Amino acid sequence: MQPYDMPLEKLEQYKPTLNAQPDLRAFWDATLSEMRDEPWDEQLEAIEYPVRGVAVHRLQFRGFRGATIQAWYARPLMDPEPLPGLVLYHGYNWNYEGNLQEVVNWALRGYAVVGMSARGQQASGQSMPSPHGHVAGWMTQGILDPDVYYYRGVYSDAVRTLEWLSRRPQVDPNRIGVTGGSQGGGLALAAAALSDIPRVAAVDYPYLCHFRRAVDVAPAGPYGEITEFLRQNGDPAAEAQAFRTLSYFDVMNLAPWIQAPALISAGLVDQLTPPSTIFAAYNHIGSEEKAIRVFRYFGHEFIPRFQYEKLGWLKRVLQDGRDIE
Amino acid sequence: MQPYDMPLEKLEQYKPTLNAQPDLRAFWDATLSEMRDEPWDEQLEAIEYPVRGVAVHRLQFRGFRGATIQAWYARPLMDPEPLPGLVLYHGYNWNYEGNLQEVVNWALRGYAVVGMSARGQQASGQSMPSPHGHVAGWMTQGILDPDVYYYRGVYSDAVRTLEWLSRRPQVDPNRIGVTGGSQGGGLALAAAALSDIPRVAAVDYPYLCHFRRAVDVAPAGPYGEITEFLRQNGDPAAEAQAFRTLSYFDVMNLAPWIQAPALISAGLVDQLTPPSTIFAAYNHIGSEEKAIRVFRYFGHEFIPRFQYEKLGWLKRVLQDGRDIE
Amino acid sequence: MQPYDMPLEKLEQYKPTLNAQPDLRAFWDATLSEMRDEPWDEQLEAIEYPVRGVAVHRLQFRGFRGATIQAWYARPLMDPEPLPGLVLYHGYNWNYEGNLQEVVNWALRGYAVVGMSARGQQASGQSMPSPHGHVAGWMTQGILDPDVYYYRGVYSDAVRTLEWLSRRPQVDPNRIGVTGGSQGGGLALAAAALSDIPRVAAVDYPYLCHFRRAVDVAPAGPYGEITEFLRQNGDPAAEAQAFRTLSYFDVMNLAPWIQAPALISAGLVDQLTPPSTIFAAYNHIGSEEKAIRVFRYFGHEFIPRFQYEKLGWLKRVLQDGRDIE
Amino acid sequence: MQPYDMPLEKLEQYKPTLNAQPDLRAFWDATLSEMRDEPWDEQLEAIEYPVRGVAVHRLQFRGFRGATIQAWYARPLMDPEPLPGLVLYHGYNWNYEGNLQEVVNWALRGYAVVGMSARGQQASGQSMPSPHGHVAGWMTQGILDPDVYYYRGVYSDAVRTLEWLSRRPQVDPNRIGVTGGSQGGGLALAAAALSDIPRVAAVDYPYLCHFRRAVDVAPAGPYGEITEFLRQNGDPAAEAQAFRTLSYFDVMNLAPWIQAPALISAGLVDQLTPPSTIFAAYNHIGSEEKAIRVFRYFGHEFIPRFQYEKLGWLKRVLQDGRDIE
Amino acid sequence: MQPYDMPLEKLEQYKPTLNAQPDLRAFWDATLSEMRDEPWDEQLEAIEYPVRGVAVHRLQFRGFRGATIQAWYARPLMDPEPLPGLVLYHGYNWNYEGNLQEVVNWALRGYAVVGMSARGQQASGQSMPSPHGHVAGWMTQGILDPDVYYYRGVYSDAVRTLEWLSRRPQVDPNRIGVTGGSQGGGLALAAAALSDIPRVAAVDYPYLCHFRRAVDVAPAGPYGEITEFLRQNGDPAAEAQAFRTLSYFDVMNLAPWIQAPALISAGLVDQLTPPSTIFAAYNHIGSEEKAIRVFRYFGHEFIPRFQYEKLGWLKRVLQDGRDIE
Amino acid sequence: MQPYDMPLEKLEQYKPTLNAQPDLRAFWDATLSEMRDEPWDEQLEAIEYPVRGVAVHRLQFRGFRGATIQAWYARPLMDPEPLPGLVLYHGYNWNYEGNLQEVVNWALRGYAVVGMSARGQQASGQSMPSPHGHVAGWMTQGILDPDVYYYRGVYSDAVRTLEWLSRRPQVDPNRIGVTGGSQGGGLALAAAALSDIPRVAAVDYPYLCHFRRAVDVAPAGPYGEITEFLRQNGDPAAEAQAFRTLSYFDVMNLAPWIQAPALISAGLVDQLTPPSTIFAAYNHIGSEEKAIRVFRYFGHEFIPRFQYEKLGWLKRVLQDGRDIE
Repeated sequence: MQPYDMPLEKLEQYKPTLNAQPDLRAFWDATLSEMRDEPWDEQLEAIEYPVRGVAVHRLQFRGFRGATIQAWYARPLMDPEPLPGLVLYHGYNWNYEGNLQEVVNWALRGYAVVGMSARGQQASGQSMPSPHGHVAGWMTQGILDPDVYYYRGVYSDAVRTLEWLSRRPQVDPNRIGVTGGSQGGGLALAAAALSDIPRVAAVDYPYLCHFRRAVDVAPAGPYGEITEFLRQNGDPAAEAQAFRTLSYFDVMNLAPWIQAPALISAGLVDQLTPPSTIFAAYNHIGSEEKAIRVFRYFGHEFIPRFQYEKLGWLKRVLQDGRDIE
Repeated sequence: MQPYDMPLEKLEQYKPTLNAQPDLRAFWDATLSEMRDEPWDEQLEAIEYPVRGVAVHRLQFRGFRGATIQAWYARPLMDPEPLPGLVLYHGYNWNYEGNLQEVVNWALRGYAVVGMSARGQQASGQSMPSPHGHVAGWMTQGILDPDVYYYRGVYSDAVRTLEWLSRRPQVDPNRIGVTGGSQGGGLALAAAALSDIPRVAAVDYPYLCHFRRAVDVAPAGPYGEITEFLRQNGDPAAEAQAFRTLSYFDVMNLAPWIQAPALISAGLVDQLTPPSTIFAAYNHIGSEEKAIRVFRYFGHEFIPRFQYEKLGWLKRVLQDGRDIE
Repeated sequence: MQPYDMPLEKLEQYKPTLNAQPDLRAFWDATLSEMRDEPWDEQLEAIEYPVRGVAVHRLQFRGFRGATIQAWYARPLMDPEPLPGLVLYHGYNWNYEGNLQEVVNWALRGYAVVGMSARGQQASGQSMPSPHGHVAGWMTQGILDPDVYYYRGVYSDAVRTLEWLSRRPQVDPNRIGVTGGSQGGGLALAAAALSDIPRVAAVDYPYLCHFRRAVDVAPAGPYGEITEFLRQNGDPAAEAQAFRTLSYFDVMNLAPWIQAPALISAGLVDQLTPPSTIFAAYNHIGSEEKAIRVFRYFGHEFIPRFQYEKLGWLKRVLQDGRDIE
Repeated sequence: MQPYDMPLEKLEQYKPTLNAQPDLRAFWDATLSEMRDEPWDEQLEAIEYPVRGVAVHRLQFRGFRGATIQAWYARPLMDPEPLPGLVLYHGYNWNYEGNLQEVVNWALRGYAVVGMSARGQQASGQSMPSPHGHVAGWMTQGILDPDVYYYRGVYSDAVRTLEWLSRRPQVDPNRIGVTGGSQGGGLALAAAALSDIPRVAAVDYPYLCHFRRAVDVAPAGPYGEITEFLRQNGDPAAEAQAFRTLSYFDVMNLAPWIQAPALISAGLVDQLTPPSTIFAAYNHIGSEEKAIRVFRYFGHEFIPRFQYEKLGWLKRVLQDGRDIE
Repeated sequence: MQPYDMPLEKLEQYKPTLNAQPDLRAFWDATLSEMRDEPWDEQLEAIEYPVRGVAVHRLQFRGFRGATIQAWYARPLMDPEPLPGLVLYHGYNWNYEGNLQEVVNWALRGYAVVGMSARGQQASGQSMPSPHGHVAGWMTQGILDPDVYYYRGVYSDAVRTLEWLSRRPQVDPNRIGVTGGSQGGGLALAAAALSDIPRVAAVDYPYLCHFRRAVDVAPAGPYGEITEFLRQNGDPAAEAQAFRTLSYFDVMNLAPWIQAPALISAGLVDQLTPPSTIFAAYNHIGSEEKAIRVFRYFGHEFIPRFQYEKLGWLKRVLQDGRDIE
Repeated sequence: MQPYDMPLEKLEQYKPTLNAQPDLRAFWDATLSEMRDEPWDEQLEAIEYPVRGVAVHRLQFRGFRGATIQAWYARPLMDPEPLPGLVLYHGYNWNYEGNLQEVVNWALRGYAVVGMSARGQQASGQSMPSPHGHVAGWMTQGILDPDVYYYRGVYSDAVRTLEWLSRRPQVDPNRIGVTGGSQGGGLALAAAALSDIPRVAAVDYPYLCHFRRAVDVAPAGPYGEITEFLRQNGDPAAEAQAFRTLSYFDVMNLAPWIQAPALISAGLVDQLTPPSTIFAAYNHIGSEEKAIRVFRYFGHEFIPRFQYEKLGWLKRVLQDGRDIE
């Protein structure tokens, strides 16, 4: 079936005007500053895991506004230290048992890796309850006010996880990357925009990009929660307010701040993160080195061929190559 | 298509053993006592509504653990006071603009009526964030601990709304009823069990009944959130803990405490609130006067014929008849 | 998901050329004249209904070509007479128990209201059997000849119901409105075009508009019966004949005759009555005062916010305001 | 996927008690007598058809209560006369261009064949409009009264078509059979019960059998119209009346009158005409020679292997063999 | 629902550039030459079939590279010889019991007819196993190399079947046609391009046309196997190779070689063989006499009205009329 | 939603009578003997893969009857030799790029691992073309004769792959296991039955078990290909022959020969490999140590918790523990 969104030629040129509010930078400076004032309250507990050669831990620390952030931390025992580091973010509402198996796989590949759980979704508590009603899910929690919007916490936690990893004694703070798919891809890009720790971002079909168009064109998936919110709240002022809030979290608006090498995939029949929303963000990324891989016959799913590229980019920047720095 | 759940003869006899914990009564006594210690912080604001003969207000007060509860309050202007009262609870994730139109319709029928919004769902804030992860929706927020389970707040708010209405000067506190469908039906029955204010409960296909069977047999609807939680949390101990928590909120377990006349509908092809779960609760209701109306060809939907019965029961008990008291 | 039909800017300008036959006016003059020659054979029977303050009746009279038209008639007992009047038309194949509850709700709002059943659909007999075969449903009964097309009877009955109401002693004939949704919206507009009784028409997403385009673009709903008929009757001459017949009943062609204030809703994702078909009719309405409310995120369903507008327009024209006349 | 209805062993024994009213025979005697009083008003018009060796005609005559019955009549030109005859009945709402191609195919096989159109469905006019409302389709037209029920006309027309064919000069009145599938199978069996003209009935998965169970178990198809009617008419008295009416037309109740050899197919995964409803009728058939062929992996669809059997039975009785008479 | 592919005006003009390789003719010359070198190993066995006037046989012979080709052969016994001949090809994966009934029907219409089974699909063995993996189905067997691509065998077999029929003593080799629908339509056109035996081709919505566009626009059906192959083989070189292979078998590329009168149908809502792919081939057909019939409301299904045309064309060229030669 | 197949208590006891033919053992002895007579024609080619510490190769050798078997071979470079070995089989029609990433992951866990491609499915050629027609897919290729049935090749190849691995110099032939899910699980069990190389089998929801019941109860998935074959071949003799063939390949019949420790998962809502078919095989497994893990809320999908068990069993038997031998 034919791509439903835009033809590839148009996608490659698609760079809509940013719709950031003037105080976008100030908003994030204040946010991260507030996040850094939280005490760590860190807990790190070794657990059994039936694979040789890897140390696996359950990790917990305070996130933005006191939320308890849960994560897995795993590192290889047979590789020389300091180790390259990696933060892994997971997809929306898709965090079965914390994706522990995937976290361990990355450690087996030689990375000290943290898999962070998004607050509220499966393994961590959400500390910022929505002051107003919302639809089932997290997309519209606090959507009427950027100060309490759900992703303000999550984006901050994403940066905080990077900061935690960069201070591990076994980890080389100059060789840390971010990765993830869908929501995880969006978070990886947001973290690469909001923090200068990541030396590389390699992500699958990022979510949280160009909300305005996403709501219009995505035939399925969690962008639909926003639609449902707008159905339940018919007031045009609420609609404007919601989109204003989203502008602070739109990866498209944050993309110019990204400086690290960035690799992104996009499937032309992806119905959850339509390719035009991904290109909208990609074309605004500020990095000198960036690449997007387009898969004509793939949607929002595992794309085997892209995995090799992702492994390759990460290995090149974080393992092989100190030369890149 | 044939009823999928149990044949009618079996439904009529279906009265599974209660699975309440020994401290069920103590739990609710403590809960309501804590709720009553909250200050009211009430706000009542008149609004325009394009129907003659009815006063309509936006209502707000503090609920359990400080949540902001929002509601509509409407009363007829042409009827003699004190008025009969009615509390209306809404369905799960189904609270478009607060169902204001339906609230006004009840006022036109002669009732001082409050339509309460369930916290978090559309119009009120949820004050009890889940300390652990949960799936999209409200069913599993705090499900590992009855003290913080989502419905602890909602059930308390449901009683509190009754108490608010019973203290209105225009309202006769001895002629107050509860109504609602689906989640609203479950809340109406819970309120009738936990409070002695309601003189009658007339509800459509109540939700929140006999969770253990519901998870097994409901082919669709929000009981599935519990299934999803159990998929994401594979630990058998978590499963046991979740069902233990649910036992405190199972309308089946609360049903023996209901004393007011109770009228209930059940559709034999209802896939969201399977008839066996409704009968399980109904057959445990303690009221002297109770009735269940079975609709062979209806599911989880508007059942025209039952509306006449519901209107009739409410009118008989609350409007015509002081003789019943 | 994005509007599938036309972008809003195009909808607002969409005013296709009318395709009425030259004898359109003559056809309807003859039709209504024949209808007025029918004797009334009226029966009006009071019934019990469990709401205080309203008198409810079952109404029956002869319609076009002798059909038995059934209806509900309800009026408020506490309001001063003469009362404003309202005729309510129902949706296609959607007339459960005659929508009696909705009829009573309108009476509670202060209107003497008649809810007419469309012949054949649920509560009335169809007196004009199709001389040729047709597909399941009513859309293609008699479609090869305007003289016996199904809606010739229904449109006539719609006018006749208005005439009945206007002659009620309790009703002010100068304050009568029409309302309804989908088929009911189409009938309300048709009645406002064919009769000068209505002082206002307030309708949800009208059906029966711009058949030619509707058959092409509606992905679901009863316009599909016409498609099915054209599949079963492959003769191009039959296709031409069918569309010729439909031209006499196309609300788009009747719209210029509407003079009363008209309020219409359209949902941009409505798949049963595509927005372009509604705008096609709306843009041809002859009234000085008209308005269309567009709901970007709604389809063919209850739209809460529009109800306030509808109540407001009817109240302003029929209840508050003799000043409008 | 496994048979959903009853296991084969139970089907073979399934012979529910008949639920005919005492006046069943009288009802049909009166009906057929009234039918025979109609004048024929026959029209037979030769048409072009691009196959050599067959004469094809459009046929029209008056049916029960004056309906215009349309049909195709085709006969082979190369076979010796008198010819064996066959009446073909079509499926419900499935009469594209009168199935002319199929009628011609039977003529090519050597039969003088009439393909009758069911009144109202596609090619004939329905003369008995329902005095009450009904749902889209024909199943509930007049369902509250056997005198005017839709199938009273159709069954009568089915017999009348047989009588027409039996009087053709080219046809041997002692070698006429009936065939059809689904509704056509039900009509063929009804005709074989109500007329002694048919010498053989060979039918695919007959519809119109054991309505009471069909409404309960059929997951799809037109039995659902009855369910829908009972949803729209919630009065239990109406339900009883509807099933009383249906008892006069239930092929199960007519089956004992069938005396001709009868061959029937049943698919075990048929969801429109569940196998238990077919066996219920089959096991009551009065013929000395009867057979049912069961197809485990087939539903309501073309079953290639059964066609050979059907052709074989018809050929044996009507073509090869006068010996059978 | 509206045509989804291209508007009719564009379809009529749609004639994309051919993408044949320079050696297309050489490829097919070599292929047919190799096919003709196979020994026949013919077996022809009379079978019982319950219709008078037709002789029916099971036919088997060696096809391209030694495959066993199975077929039905039927001819009328009452018509004068030599008979006109017809080869019937079946749809993809749709060959229940060899479509024997349909083959016999054509014999009854006066043709000596062969219904060939496509190798591997249901009734014949595939002699050319794919040297590489493929997805379920036949579309991608050998797709990386034209020499072993599945349809190289099938197209050759299609021609060979024609050659077999043309040598039957009862058959007039100058009055042979080809017919079929979907895959059968594609094969009939391919055979008419690769062989000069066919005097007419009359086909329904041919498959195997304009693969490049088909993969892009077909929402359903077996073109999707190619998409799936390209998903499983992400290498761009494999994609190029696959489309290169397909170019040898694209009926669009073969169409200029067709010289016989050709009649084709296309349904505007056909989702398996999109109308643009059919027009792409049709507009390249080299025949002096050709016609395409467009059915606006039909998809990939039986189109009654087209059958008359098809019968008519075949009869005109093969039966009535030697005058055409 | 409730388990659809059998309640857990019944599953645990479900041990249907085996339906093996008397010559089952002889059949497999002859098969493996023939397989061992094939020359190896092995090719092993190192490839680049972007992970440090693992050597990755493309492997190819001759399989049963000369098929080219393709596979990936990967082994860890940092672990002491001889290494434990593992053979990984993939799911049906699910072999994207040969699952290379998964193969490498197992090597990272310390195993010398071969991921074999099933012939014809994606990466290997099928050397045994079906002598008769079959439906799309592999399930019915050669199904009328055990000698040429598709899985005769695949099962033999599965054993051959084990034999290849056991002869690697870096591999300890006494510490080799088998794993896989769905078809891969069935192949792992078959290999453990037909070869004494495997010291452990740890599999997810095995396919290819208890065909007779599977065809009856599986609502979805490739067992349906058998149903489709039986629809296309209506002859009861063909049905008997097909099930006779399948008996030679039914993992249930082979299960008594399994002696190695075996771990199996079963999801109670699995619709592709119904739990009863898995228990039917499991309860016949001959091993002293065996375990089945039941997942009430899971279907045919990744089950996180089971992965820990699977990793643990393999590690215990193959890595930790020579003590088990």
